Amino acid sequence: MKKKMHFLAFAQHGVINHAIAMWAHPRDKVGYDYARPEFWQDLGRLLERGRFDAIFLADELAPYNVYKGDVDISIRYAAQCPVHDPATLVPVIALATKHLGIGITLSTTFEHPYTLCRRLSTLDHLTDGRVGWNIVTSYSSSEFQAMGVTDVIPREERYARLEEFMEVSYQLWDSWAPDAIVADAETALYADPSKVKKVAHEGRYFRCHGPSFVRHSPQGRPVLWQAGSSAQGRDFAARHAEAVFNIQPTAETMRAYTDDIRRRAHAHGRDPESVRIFFGLQIVLGETRESAEEKLAAFKAKIPLDGALAKLSGDIGFDFSKLDLDADIGDIEVPGIRGQFDAIMAANGGKPVTVRQAAEIYGMSLGAPVLVGTASDVADQMETLFEAGGHDGYMIMATYMPGCFQEFVEDVVPLLQARGLYRTDYTGRTLREHLSER
Amino acid sequence: MKKKMHFLAFAQHGVINHAIAMWAHPRDKVGYDYARPEFWQDLGRLLERGRFDAIFLADELAPYNVYKGDVDISIRYAAQCPVHDPATLVPVIALATKHLGIGITLSTTFEHPYTLCRRLSTLDHLTDGRVGWNIVTSYSSSEFQAMGVTDVIPREERYARLEEFMEVSYQLWDSWAPDAIVADAETALYADPSKVKKVAHEGRYFRCHGPSFVRHSPQGRPVLWQAGSSAQGRDFAARHAEAVFNIQPTAETMRAYTDDIRRRAHAHGRDPESVRIFFGLQIVLGETRESAEEKLAAFKAKIPLDGALAKLSGDIGFDFSKLDLDADIGDIEVPGIRGQFDAIMAANGGKPVTVRQAAEIYGMSLGAPVLVGTASDVADQMETLFEAGGHDGYMIMATYMPGCFQEFVEDVVPLLQARGLYRTDYTGRTLREHLSER
Repeated sequence: MKKKMHFLAFAQHGVINHAIAMWAHPRDKVGYDYARPEFWQDLGRLLERGRFDAIFLADELAPYNVYKGDVDISIRYAAQCPVHDPATLVPVIALATKHLGIGITLSTTFEHPYTLCRRLSTLDHLTDGRVGWNIVTSYSSSEFQAMGVTDVIPREERYARLEEFMEVSYQLWDSWAPDAIVADAETALYADPSKVKKVAHEGRYFRCHGPSFVRHSPQGRPVLWQAGSSAQGRDFAARHAEAVFNIQPTAETMRAYTDDIRRRAHAHGRDPESVRIFFGLQIVLGETRESAEEKLAAFKAKIPLDGALAKLSGDIGFDFSKLDLDADIGDIEVPGIRGQFDAIMAANGGKPVTVRQAAEIYGMSLGAPVLVGTASDVADQMETLFEAGGHDGYMIMATYMPGCFQEFVEDVVPLLQARGLYRTDYTGRTLREHLSER
Repeated sequence: MKKKMHFLAFAQHGVINHAIAMWAHPRDKVGYDYARPEFWQDLGRLLERGRFDAIFLADELAPYNVYKGDVDISIRYAAQCPVHDPATLVPVIALATKHLGIGITLSTTFEHPYTLCRRLSTLDHLTDGRVGWNIVTSYSSSEFQAMGVTDVIPREERYARLEEFMEVSYQLWDSWAPDAIVADAETALYADPSKVKKVAHEGRYFRCHGPSFVRHSPQGRPVLWQAGSSAQGRDFAARHAEAVFNIQPTAETMRAYTDDIRRRAHAHGRDPESVRIFFGLQIVLGETRESAEEKLAAFKAKIPLDGALAKLSGDIGFDFSKLDLDADIGDIEVPGIRGQFDAIMAANGGKPVTVRQAAEIYGMSLGAPVLVGTASDVADQMETLFEAGGHDGYMIMATYMPGCFQEFVEDVVPLLQARGLYRTDYTGRTLREHLSER
C-alpha cells in the first residue's frame, strides 16, 4: 500500500489568504465575504468533501507597519489587513462539518497560558475533538506596538519562555482526569476533586495556580502544530509538535527539512513518523497547460508591487523601501532576513532575483512552489515531490477563494485517490486521528 | 401605549447557571450538554421564539477557592465550576438565530484592549450586529492566582484604569470609517488609508498604537453592558453603559436603583432612558400556586449547603467557613461584604437571616426575587414590580435548563403580550435596536 498524502487548507480570517490582491479577482469571494459565517461554512463543507485533514488559519495580531514605516500600504492593498480573530471561526466551521479539523494560530507572547488553554479546551469540546493549535510567538514590531509592550523578549529567551508556556499548558490540559465527572444526582456530587490535579507553577516566566476551568476535552490536549524554521524552532517542533508546516521551494530542500525534523524527533525519543510534515504548495489549474500558465501570468500581473513589498517587509521585519528595486537580492546584506532570500532564489530555480522579482514571487506564494497545469499535470508533480521529499502532505495555499479549493477538490483529488495516494473517506473522528492515519 | 418589558436570559457556559445543583434536577440538561453546541442552539431558538433581547453569558476566569481555602468544594458541587470560555458560544448561538442578541462577559483585567476589541468586533461581524459586551474587572483571588498576577490593582485605581481601557476601546472601534473599504478591483485598491484613523495612545495604564485590525463592524461598537453596584460602578455605568443589570430584592430597592442610575446618566448629559435597566428575576411556575411552591421547596431541598457557601464565599471574597452557621448575618462584621448581606435580608422580607439561610437564599437566586405561582400569578407580579420599579426589563435567571425558559416562553410570554406589555415580534435587526425599542 502506498503512503497517503494529507492536506491542509492554508487560510486567514481576512481579505487575503497570502496571495496579494486575489480579492480583486472576479472569481474571488473573500473581499467582503470573509466576515460572513456562510463563506467559511461553505469552504468547510468543500474541504470536508475533499477529505482534508483540516483548515489551517494563520494569524497576525496587528497590521504590518514596517514598509515605509506605517500601515498605509498594508491598508491600501489589503496586505494582510484587515485580519479578524481566527478563534471565532472554529465553531462556525465545526457546525457545518463533521470531520474536518480546524487549526488556529494563537500567539503565546501576549496571553497567559491559563486563558489560552481555556479557549482551546472549550473549542475542543464544541468541535468534539477537532481542534489544532499552531503555536507561535509574536515577532512583528506592529504587534508589540499595538499591545503597548516595549520590553520585547530577547530572541535567545523566546524559546525558553515558550518551553515554560508548554509546560504550564500540559499541566492545565491534564488537570481534569477523563473520569473526574461523577454527576451523581442523588448526592449532588458533580465531580471528584481527587481526580482534578491542582497546578502550582512558579516558574521563571509564568506563575499559575489552580486546575483548568474546563473539564477534560475530547482530545485532552489540542493537536499541536508548529512552523519551525530556525534550529531552535525545529528542535521545539521535534519535541512538541504533532505536525509541522514549512515552505520549501524544491524537492531537495523539502527532503533536507524532512530528514532534519525526523532526526531531531528521533533524538528526543519520539517515533520520527509521529511528526507530520507539511509543505506549502500553490496550485494553478487550467483545462490545458497553456491556459493554466496564462492564468498564473494574469494573477501575477495583478500583484501591486507596493502591496507585495509591504507583506514581505512585515514578514521579514525589514523595510524594503530602503532597497533598490533592481538590486540583486544575492548581493544584499540585511540582518534578520532568516533564509527567506535563499528560499526565494531557490524558488526561482537558482537564477538571480531582483528585489522587485522577490516581491512578486513572495506576493504570489510566499516562495512556495507553484504547480501549474492540468489536473493530471499537477497530480504528477505532487506525486513526484511527495516521493522525493519524504514528507506527509501539503498545505494548499489559496489563490482565489473558495474557487481554487473547489477546482482542486473536484479535479485533482479524484486523480490522487485513483492512484491510491489519498484517502477516499475519513476513518477517524478527531483531528489527531486524521493526522495519524497512514 | 404601555411601556414594554425587555428580557435577557442569564446563563453561563458551564454546569450551573447561578442556581446551585440544578444540574441534578431530572429536567435539567446542563450537566453534560453545556459543552455541546446543540444545547445552546436549541436554547437560542427558544429565546428568539420568546422575543428576548439577548442571552447574557456571565463569566469568571477561574474556579473559586475562597471557601475553606481551596477549589475542592467548588469542583465537588459544580459551584460555578467548570465554566468554559463564553466568547466561543457567540457564533454557535448566532448561527441558530436571526435576531437574538448575545452578550458576553469579558474582563478588562488581564487582557489588552487591542485583542479584546478585535474579538468583539470580529463577533459583531459574524453575528451581523448582535453582540453585547458585559464590562467587568476581575476581583476574585483565584483569578489572580490562575494568571499569576501578584500586583493586584488597588480598588481605588480600578475605575481609573477601566476608564482608560474604554477610551482606548472607543478609539479602536472608531478607527475604520464605515466607508473605508473601496474594493476597486481595477486599481487593486482595497481600502482608503485616509479613512482609517491611527490610534496613538500613551496613557497611564495602556499604550496602544495602530488602527484596529478589524474593519468597521455592523454595530460599530458592541452594545455596552455593565452591572454597577458601588457608587463608582454606577457612575461608570451612567457614563458608558447602554444596559445595566442588577439584583435588587424588592420593588422599593429596584426603584431606588433605577432613579439613581437615571439621575447619574442625566448628570452626564445623557437621556436617562438611554440606559436600559434590568433586574434579575427567578421564576418558578406550576399548574397551581401550591404545586409551584412545592417545586421551589424541592429545588431548595436539593441545594448542597457547602456548594452554596462556596459560591457565596467566592462571589463575596470572604471564607464563610469561618462563620457560625447559626449566627444572624445582621450581627456579622465582615470587610468587603459589599451590601450583599443587606440584600439577602431584604430578600427575606427584612426578617433575620442566619448564615445557613443566607447560603440557601443565595444558592437559589443570588438574592434576586423568586416569583412563584401559576403563569398568571407570575405575569401579575412582573407587572406590579415593573410599574413600581421604573426599570426596563428583567434578566431571567435559570433554574433547570432549558426547561425553565421553555415554560416561561410558552406560558408567561403570551400573557404579557396579551396585556400589551411585551413585543410580539422584533422590529429591529441589531441588539442595539432591540434594546432601544420602546
